[in-house]
Amino acid sequence: MTEAMLTKSRWMQGGGPEIEIVVSSRVRLARNLMGEAFPCLAAGPQNRAVIDRVITSAENDPALKSFSRLRVEELSALDKQTLMEKHLISPYMAREAEQGAILVSADEAISIMVNEEDHLRIQAILPGLQLEEALGEADRIDDIIEKSMPYAFHEQYGYLTACPTNMGTGLRASVMLHLPALIRTRQLNRILGALSQVGLTVRGLYGEGTEITGSLVQVSNQVTLGLTEEEIIANLHSVTCRVIEQEQAARQSLLDKNRAALADSAWRALGLLQYAQVMSIKEAVSLISDLRLGYDLGLIKSINHRLLNELLVLIRPGYLQNLAGKSLNESERDLERPVQLRKALERYRDEGEEKVSPGSKEENKS
Amino acid sequence: MTEAMLTKSRWMQGGGPEIEIVVSSRVRLARNLMGEAFPCLAAGPQNRAVIDRVITSAENDPALKSFSRLRVEELSALDKQTLMEKHLISPYMAREAEQGAILVSADEAISIMVNEEDHLRIQAILPGLQLEEALGEADRIDDIIEKSMPYAFHEQYGYLTACPTNMGTGLRASVMLHLPALIRTRQLNRILGALSQVGLTVRGLYGEGTEITGSLVQVSNQVTLGLTEEEIIANLHSVTCRVIEQEQAARQSLLDKNRAALADSAWRALGLLQYAQVMSIKEAVSLISDLRLGYDLGLIKSINHRLLNELLVLIRPGYLQNLAGKSLNESERDLERPVQLRKALERYRDEGEEKVSPGSKEENKS
Repeated sequence: MTEAMLTKSRWMQGGGPEIEIVVSSRVRLARNLMGEAFPCLAAGPQNRAVIDRVITSAENDPALKSFSRLRVEELSALDKQTLMEKHLISPYMAREAEQGAILVSADEAISIMVNEEDHLRIQAILPGLQLEEALGEADRIDDIIEKSMPYAFHEQYGYLTACPTNMGTGLRASVMLHLPALIRTRQLNRILGALSQVGLTVRGLYGEGTEITGSLVQVSNQVTLGLTEEEIIANLHSVTCRVIEQEQAARQSLLDKNRAALADSAWRALGLLQYAQVMSIKEAVSLISDLRLGYDLGLIKSINHRLLNELLVLIRPGYLQNLAGKSLNESERDLERPVQLRKALERYRDEGEEKVSPGSKEENKS
Repeated sequence: MTEAMLTKSRWMQGGGPEIEIVVSSRVRLARNLMGEAFPCLAAGPQNRAVIDRVITSAENDPALKSFSRLRVEELSALDKQTLMEKHLISPYMAREAEQGAILVSADEAISIMVNEEDHLRIQAILPGLQLEEALGEADRIDDIIEKSMPYAFHEQYGYLTACPTNMGTGLRASVMLHLPALIRTRQLNRILGALSQVGLTVRGLYGEGTEITGSLVQVSNQVTLGLTEEEIIANLHSVTCRVIEQEQAARQSLLDKNRAALADSAWRALGLLQYAQVMSIKEAVSLISDLRLGYDLGLIKSINHRLLNELLVLIRPGYLQNLAGKSLNESERDLERPVQLRKALERYRDEGEEKVSPGSKEENKS
């Protein structure tokens, strides 16, 4: 089990459009089965029955039978945390759900949470700005499931959900943005204000209640009712494009003002990520952000987004402990984090990719 | 000329006793020629005559003829600064002397300044705690010169010098100490107070008026009169041994309390020295100190004192510009410094010494 936790999700591979600013795009659909009580109102046997229905249905469906099927009660706290850190399940599911299940596609682009707040949460997460593509993936799975298990649906209110804020389309779409230049030039608060005026919500890396670290911001739609799926996606997409333009302008302004300082902070980050012996998660996230900015500005060439995303996930408590193969308290994790960062950077070099060194010829051209 | 400036002085090679705390030991003798006016009172032709006498005498002496003979007026400001940074001449000589000369032995352990404040300043500088040995070297050269050129000497006052504070033995002895643990444990001020009570003076790296940076402290005798050469040396030696004991105790205490934090700061220093793109001299000196402490505590193995001393000198403005082969202003030097630091660390690796990396097997044993 633990081994499977260390797979690199599709979004971690990088490669989508606007990848230098949009880390990933995510769409999730909240659905409930007709005739079953919502998880929070259901007793144990009822919840178990829902899980069994979904798993049996998946086992018998050609499109879903390759999905991993994980029952929450069989997962360790560490594994649940790791799935959350990879954005495959919600923090709520990782911490609270007792009788649930998780279905995950082989490339981890699609995950289905069973008995989170709703019976089903169908999620698609892709690298870069791919909201429409993510919606397409989620809709495809949604259609497949609906064929065997009719949903709770109301002509006027749309899909019925445990929490009214999800009613209607049941759709929440979000983009994870890397906005270091807007933060360095102190423009982020202004932009966040503008986003909330157009019905979007801004949160930290792991959703509600998490703080913004490493210049990573999650922007999602607030409203699920009264708009079509396509309208919600189009709105978020177009606002994201405007934020991208602002971040690009801020990056260009920083480059024009002090290119050497930007290169310095990126290379220093790489040096510290390779040489430190003790490192908090907060420092690691911040250094990975500096490094990412340097790469996206062309100031460091011999790394890539796949490596950056891997680093971003492996420094998290759950993934880190899974990598180490043992349970670690916070100060032990601060010692283990640099070990695993170095290993990842060495693996990257050993895979035949270019030398990550400030002295290499190609780098000096920049 | 510039090429010769880049030679590694004997003290830079490392290897003396107590080298983990005593970077170098230096002895200088102030001497004046009988019948000649002190430099500050002499006119141009008289000063030139002294230079000619000393140089001719050296050319004809078997023990001195291999010495480099540099006339101050033929040296660029940059070269004078570089000689000062290597501790071969005084800051005063580098900045003020107009009609002087410098004689330097091939290994740069001995240098003779002509027409600094006195006609002759004979200096020996050796790595580690070698005050007696340095005195022996200086005395040997002193005896050789005195044979051909009688000194100004008074039965009661001893050697006569331009400044009365040098009269008597004309001897100033000093040790350069690396005291990072006494500084980190906030004990340095107490120790400095005690040193001044026993007639010793504490200064920064380049003598009077220079601040203490990189935990490097220069301790020298204040009194030159009323004591024999041997007494002065024995006093400084014994006080130095007591400071060494205190620094060692402070290092052990730091190790006991937080070994991981010490290793962390040493490895981070190495990472930054190799990866930064912009670096001030102040930061560089501080990082080299962190690295030195880590090496001296056995937390980093694959470097050595020769490398550390070379780094300590090459980051200085004069040496740095000589290395770069061109004149650089302060912000250009901050960009050139990391380039030369990386080159020195690469040369060190290319010379077949061990890999300087936190992931190597030998290092992981520590």
